[in-house]
Amino acid sequence: MIVRPLPHQPGSAGTAGSGLALARSALSDAATAERRSATLGWLADRARERPMTVRRTPLDELDGWRSDPATGTIRHHTGRFFSVEGVEVRVDGGAVPCWRQPMLNQPEIGILGILTRTVDGVAQFLLQAKVEPGNPRGYQLSPTVQATRSNYTGVHNGRPVRYLQHFLQRGGHRVIADVRQSEQGAWFLQKRNRNMIVEVGAQVGAEAGFRWFTLAEIHHLLAVENIVNMDSRTVLSCLPVGVDAVPARDRFTAALQASMARTDGRHDMMTVLSAVTEARTSTETRTRPVPLRETTGWIRRDGRIRHESGAFFEVVGVDVRAAGREVDGWSQPMFAARGRGLAAFVVNETSGVLHVLVQLRAEPGLVDVVELAPTVQCTPATLQSLPALPAPPLLDLVEKAPAADVRFDCVMAEEGGRFLDTETRYTVVETTDPAEPPGYLWVTVGQLQELLRHSHYLNVQARSLVTCLHSLSTPAPRRTL
Amino acid sequence: MIVRPLPHQPGSAGTAGSGLALARSALSDAATAERRSATLGWLADRARERPMTVRRTPLDELDGWRSDPATGTIRHHTGRFFSVEGVEVRVDGGAVPCWRQPMLNQPEIGILGILTRTVDGVAQFLLQAKVEPGNPRGYQLSPTVQATRSNYTGVHNGRPVRYLQHFLQRGGHRVIADVRQSEQGAWFLQKRNRNMIVEVGAQVGAEAGFRWFTLAEIHHLLAVENIVNMDSRTVLSCLPVGVDAVPARDRFTAALQASMARTDGRHDMMTVLSAVTEARTSTETRTRPVPLRETTGWIRRDGRIRHESGAFFEVVGVDVRAAGREVDGWSQPMFAARGRGLAAFVVNETSGVLHVLVQLRAEPGLVDVVELAPTVQCTPATLQSLPALPAPPLLDLVEKAPAADVRFDCVMAEEGGRFLDTETRYTVVETTDPAEPPGYLWVTVGQLQELLRHSHYLNVQARSLVTCLHSLSTPAPRRTL
Repeated sequence: MIVRPLPHQPGSAGTAGSGLALARSALSDAATAERRSATLGWLADRARERPMTVRRTPLDELDGWRSDPATGTIRHHTGRFFSVEGVEVRVDGGAVPCWRQPMLNQPEIGILGILTRTVDGVAQFLLQAKVEPGNPRGYQLSPTVQATRSNYTGVHNGRPVRYLQHFLQRGGHRVIADVRQSEQGAWFLQKRNRNMIVEVGAQVGAEAGFRWFTLAEIHHLLAVENIVNMDSRTVLSCLPVGVDAVPARDRFTAALQASMARTDGRHDMMTVLSAVTEARTSTETRTRPVPLRETTGWIRRDGRIRHESGAFFEVVGVDVRAAGREVDGWSQPMFAARGRGLAAFVVNETSGVLHVLVQLRAEPGLVDVVELAPTVQCTPATLQSLPALPAPPLLDLVEKAPAADVRFDCVMAEEGGRFLDTETRYTVVETTDPAEPPGYLWVTVGQLQELLRHSHYLNVQARSLVTCLHSLSTPAPRRTL
Repeated sequence: MIVRPLPHQPGSAGTAGSGLALARSALSDAATAERRSATLGWLADRARERPMTVRRTPLDELDGWRSDPATGTIRHHTGRFFSVEGVEVRVDGGAVPCWRQPMLNQPEIGILGILTRTVDGVAQFLLQAKVEPGNPRGYQLSPTVQATRSNYTGVHNGRPVRYLQHFLQRGGHRVIADVRQSEQGAWFLQKRNRNMIVEVGAQVGAEAGFRWFTLAEIHHLLAVENIVNMDSRTVLSCLPVGVDAVPARDRFTAALQASMARTDGRHDMMTVLSAVTEARTSTETRTRPVPLRETTGWIRRDGRIRHESGAFFEVVGVDVRAAGREVDGWSQPMFAARGRGLAAFVVNETSGVLHVLVQLRAEPGLVDVVELAPTVQCTPATLQSLPALPAPPLLDLVEKAPAADVRFDCVMAEEGGRFLDTETRYTVVETTDPAEPPGYLWVTVGQLQELLRHSHYLNVQARSLVTCLHSLSTPAPRRTL
């Protein structure tokens, strides 16, 4: 494959916020297969230098954590961090109209922040090699800063968080993105994090454990299993990427570029916004707290909580020993999904513009009930073990798509600070069928980017997929000879 | 004053959503002093034909309403409509760090909808002559539809709501605005209404009690006390008005037109959005339910609830007899403010662009803690009776502004379905001082309009003031001779 050089634009230094510096970064020629290997080697080195060991431990034996005798709620003795609580969910007219389940309750809003700088007209992003106890593959690329409020108010009694000051005191720095976004609405009760991208001067360097990457390098790493962590994916989805500075390589890339540039598509923006308002107004999903002990169908035994069917997820405990963290060791409960998740965008090109089929999806833990979600979002193993659950529309199309229609396909973990070995297959599948089922909308990538300037429009799986879509604008890595 | 005729643009029929049909509507030559008088006469006629009588009644004698013996909560025996409950509010670092108060709890999301049509290239809006028990001046101009969820699900057992079907089934109709917006965050616990503007064909007529108005006519009526009701003001604030189709009359109008057209001003849009995110993340305002009986400082006696200082508001009861409503009579609790409110936009013209100073304001009942509010929003009488409360910044500037700097000034009532004789002075005051106090932002009218495409950015007083600002683009009514 021939990678076209970026057009030389003398005098146009460009900032990360400018389309040009971002486009150059997404198309950077310097992103080679060797650079990708070097990053993987660096992550492996970090794992050797600062290993983390994770040991499964019964929930009742977690140091510092207590189960409330009356309700069963599991919380830290300080009352901080998060708790595991019970909820009852009612969905009028749903396939399962009422159920109970454990949920993670973490009301604090943390910061997920990525620093960006522009060097020689190309935007770079500062990522950190970081391990979390739940990561299926040790060290991953995480945002510059990944801080709970406890982190930066000092509840951990740990070391200060590096680079955090750039996000707390932003005087003089340019803010590229700053939104609060939801996390897994099936598992978290109203959890949100603040997603930020802040531009700093070219003189800001990378400390040990940090490296500057171009977008093209990150895009290449998105194609490797479990390297770019969930927090990086969600923050990067807020980047206003547009790459129409260069001619497209092929029909698909041309349609993707056209889609990124369009905030009107098959539906104008007001129609998309109105559909969200309609869904949020009409959806009758109500979530109320119940004692964790009374979550019917869930069994607490042998130091963990699981569903009687064996499906969905388990609540388990872990003891963690780590080097080079704010603290040297801790214990905590985690959620462990039973089976790999599937998150798919079905896309369609019509008249040269790529459209993405998004779902107006209610999730019990969302702050605002409904967000735009992947076309297909489910756990296929759960559907197999509980045949009474209806299969989601288009699941067959995604699972049986011929290889030629699969534009992106990679397994990546959900956030390893709360989820143990919990992976999702992220995929983008092209179809020639432009049908729009009820409850779904065809939108352009530009419309999704416009919505991502605001909070709570796209759920976390959809945000990961937006970053995956962005990555398809970058040519495959060149091999230097 | 010479009113310039609208430029004749043959072949450009225009729809309400188009800038041109809206601009023509805002500048319509047909909006004369006589038309305004005719509308006031029509409202007076309606009042004679369908009178409403409102009688103060002790809270304990309201037909159909019960006070919970344990908590004091006042609710309807059906559990529907709304309730009066107690809350405790904590504001870390606030002038009053903790207080308790009664609040209205009405979790249902109702519809406030205005139909628009385009006739001869000019947009028209269908308003209703409607009276509410709390209105200080009987009949006002209300939206086409003003329906609680109880209204349209039939809990009232009343007559169907006219024109409602255009908002529920919108197939083929163009949606101009569709957002959920907050109402008074000091008095309502998380109350929201869906604000909608839907375009219909020119053949849709006005039934008895309804009339089509141009924007210019509505703008003229905004200058008359207590004519355009709160619900109309908030819905109309969502209109994407722009009037740069014609040359401006004077410096102020030119700056206003320029401001409407700009979504970048002293701050770019991302800076404005980031300031909202920052305020929402850092503000520590927590509202929790407490029994109404235990709202310290509030006294229930003689069939009403009032604050021991005599300030803030009272909770009172009314018996209502009405003709031509869904039901012929009812009883209900209401909030009655003690003293007239003040809501002011301070504006400044620099380099030919008008900027509006908005406040990032936390209110205990808001769904998302902080919204953009008027520069000054307070009840001056409360400040006088409680001298320990700090006066808000810029109150002096607004109260002592010379007449030449006052661009808009009119007293209008808050929603008469819940608030009894509760008026606010809405005013727009121009200053030459471009200083930006901490917690305030200079924004363009175009930026406010862009934010109004989304939910929960502007509070209800700010939305009323946006409509008042729009009205300043319309020349004063011409007198036909």
